[in-house]
Amino acid sequence: MKQSQRIRGVLSPVVTPFDKDLSPDPERFIAHCRWLTTQNCGLAVFGTNSEANSLSVNERIALLDSLLAADVDPSRMMPGTGCCALTDTVRLTEHAVKAGCAGVLMLPPFYYKDVSEDGLYRAYSEVIERVGDARLRIYLYHIPPVAVVGITTGLVERLLKKYPTAVAGMKDSSGDWSNTKKFLDAFAKQGFDVFAGSESFLLANMRNGGGGCISATANVNPAPIDKLYREWKKSDAEPQQEALNAVRKTVGQYVMIPALKQVIAHYANDPAWATVRPPLVELTAAQAKNVIDGLTKLNFEMPGLAQAHAKAA
Amino acid sequence: MKQSQRIRGVLSPVVTPFDKDLSPDPERFIAHCRWLTTQNCGLAVFGTNSEANSLSVNERIALLDSLLAADVDPSRMMPGTGCCALTDTVRLTEHAVKAGCAGVLMLPPFYYKDVSEDGLYRAYSEVIERVGDARLRIYLYHIPPVAVVGITTGLVERLLKKYPTAVAGMKDSSGDWSNTKKFLDAFAKQGFDVFAGSESFLLANMRNGGGGCISATANVNPAPIDKLYREWKKSDAEPQQEALNAVRKTVGQYVMIPALKQVIAHYANDPAWATVRPPLVELTAAQAKNVIDGLTKLNFEMPGLAQAHAKAA
Repeated sequence: MKQSQRIRGVLSPVVTPFDKDLSPDPERFIAHCRWLTTQNCGLAVFGTNSEANSLSVNERIALLDSLLAADVDPSRMMPGTGCCALTDTVRLTEHAVKAGCAGVLMLPPFYYKDVSEDGLYRAYSEVIERVGDARLRIYLYHIPPVAVVGITTGLVERLLKKYPTAVAGMKDSSGDWSNTKKFLDAFAKQGFDVFAGSESFLLANMRNGGGGCISATANVNPAPIDKLYREWKKSDAEPQQEALNAVRKTVGQYVMIPALKQVIAHYANDPAWATVRPPLVELTAAQAKNVIDGLTKLNFEMPGLAQAHAKAA
Repeated sequence: MKQSQRIRGVLSPVVTPFDKDLSPDPERFIAHCRWLTTQNCGLAVFGTNSEANSLSVNERIALLDSLLAADVDPSRMMPGTGCCALTDTVRLTEHAVKAGCAGVLMLPPFYYKDVSEDGLYRAYSEVIERVGDARLRIYLYHIPPVAVVGITTGLVERLLKKYPTAVAGMKDSSGDWSNTKKFLDAFAKQGFDVFAGSESFLLANMRNGGGGCISATANVNPAPIDKLYREWKKSDAEPQQEALNAVRKTVGQYVMIPALKQVIAHYANDPAWATVRPPLVELTAAQAKNVIDGLTKLNFEMPGLAQAHAKAA
C-alpha cells in the first residue's frame, strides 16, 4: 500500500482571532491561514498558542469546517485534538481524519496528574482503536510546562510497537534540547518525525534527523523559519538561526499569545486581532509598543500580511 | 428578597460509573447518588474524583438530566462546571442553575499556567455575566496539586466585591491547612463558605467557621463524616476525626479514584463499579485486597449500599 507523504517542515499553531464578544472569528482565521500557506507554513491549528483549550469542541469543529469551506488545503493541516475527555479527543480526531488533514497533534489527557505510563498508553490506544481509520497520523504533544502530563520514551516505544503507522511523530515543547535529542536518538531512524516546539531548536533538530518545527513565532515570522528549514545544510545556517532567535526573543519577552496577536494586529493594521479569551489578558499599550519597537529595530516585516488581511478586517 | 438557604455540610464528589465500553452508566450513578442522599450526603457530582474532566460536556449534561429524571433533589447538588473553555463552563453552569442546583463548583480554566489574577478574575466574571441568573451560587475550586492554576485571596476579594451573592464560597483541596485557614480568616465572616477538600480538615474547618467538607472519601464513608459535621462541638469530636482519618488513610494508600470505585464494587457486590476511564487505571487485585483488608480491620461498613445498588447492577 502506498504511504501518503508525511507532513514535514515548519508549522504554525495558528492564533485564533476573536470578535469583541469573544466568539471565534472565522473570516480573520481563514485570512491568516491563507497568508501562512503563502509563506510555505503548515497549519497546526488548535495548538496551545491557538488558545484551543479555551475553545469548545463545537467551536473547533466549526472553525476547521470554515477553513475547508474556504478551500484551505487539509493536507497542510495538523489540528490539535487532544482533550481531557476521551470522547472529545475521539470526536475531534475523527473529524480531522475525515476532513483529510495530514495529521493531528494530540495532547495527553492533562487534567489528572501523576498518571501512569500504562494509563497514558491506554488513553492513546483507546483513541486510535475508536477512530479506527488507516489514514490517522498522530503527533504526540509533549509540553510539560503547560500540560504538566508529558510523553516518555517508554510510552512512544510501546505505541510505535503496536501502532507503527498511526503514531507518526511528536512535538517536543519541553524547551529542553537534551529531551528532544533523546527522542531523536531513540526513534528518528524508524521514521518517527520529531518536531521541535520552537524554532530556537530548528537547526539542531534538523542536524539530528528531525522533521521540522511547530512554533508559535511561525505565526509572524514564517518565511525566515521556513528558509532555515530548507537551507539548514548551508554555510549561513548559524546566522540564520541567530536572526530567528532575535525575533523570537523580542516577541516572547511578554506572554507569547497576546504578544503574537499584538504583532499581527500591528502589521495587519487590524486592532481587533489583539483580543484574547480569558484567562489570558491583552498586552498593555506599553508592552505592545516595546514589542513593536523591538521588531522595528530588527527590520522585521510580515510581507503581504496587510493585503491578505484587508478583506477580513 | 428572601435568600434561599445555602448548601452546607458534607458533600461527595460522586464517582462516575462506566460500562464496559467506558460510557457513563446512568443507572448505577443514580443508585449511588440516592444512597448518598440517604446518608445525608450532598452531591458534588462532576468533581475531580468523579472523573468529570474525562467526560465531555454532553456526557455531564446527560448524567445530570438522568438524576433529575429520577427525582434526585437538585437542592442537594453542587455540580462541577469549570472547564478550560469559557463556553463550556458557561453552558454547564447555565444548565445547573436552570436545573435548580444549590450551587456549582467551579475550577478556574486550568490549561494555561502562570496566568494573572486579572485573567482569572476576567474568566469568572465573564461566566457570571453570561449566565446572568440571580440564582447562581459559585464555589471556587482550589486544587493546585491537580489543576495547578489556583485561587488566591486577592481574586476572592475582587470577586466578592463585585458579585457578593453569586460568589458563595470555595473548596480548598490544597491539602494545606494554613491555606484553608487564610481564606477562613479573610472571608468566613462575610458569609463566604469555605469547604475543606478532605474530611481530614473537617474538625479544624468547623472550629474556624467553615461550611463543611467536600471529600472523595464521602463516597464510601458519608455517615460518619456527616456525624462529625453535626457533632463537632461534642467532647468526642477528636476521636471521631481520628476514626475518619484511619478510613481515609486506608482507601487513599493507592490512587484515590480507582480505590474508591474498588471499595464500592466490593461492598455493593458489583465488580462493574471498578472500571475507570483512561488515563486512570484500575487497582491491581493485590492492591484492591489490601484496601478491603485494611477496611475490614477498621470494622468499616457501608450500610444499605448493597440493597441500594442491587437494582442498578
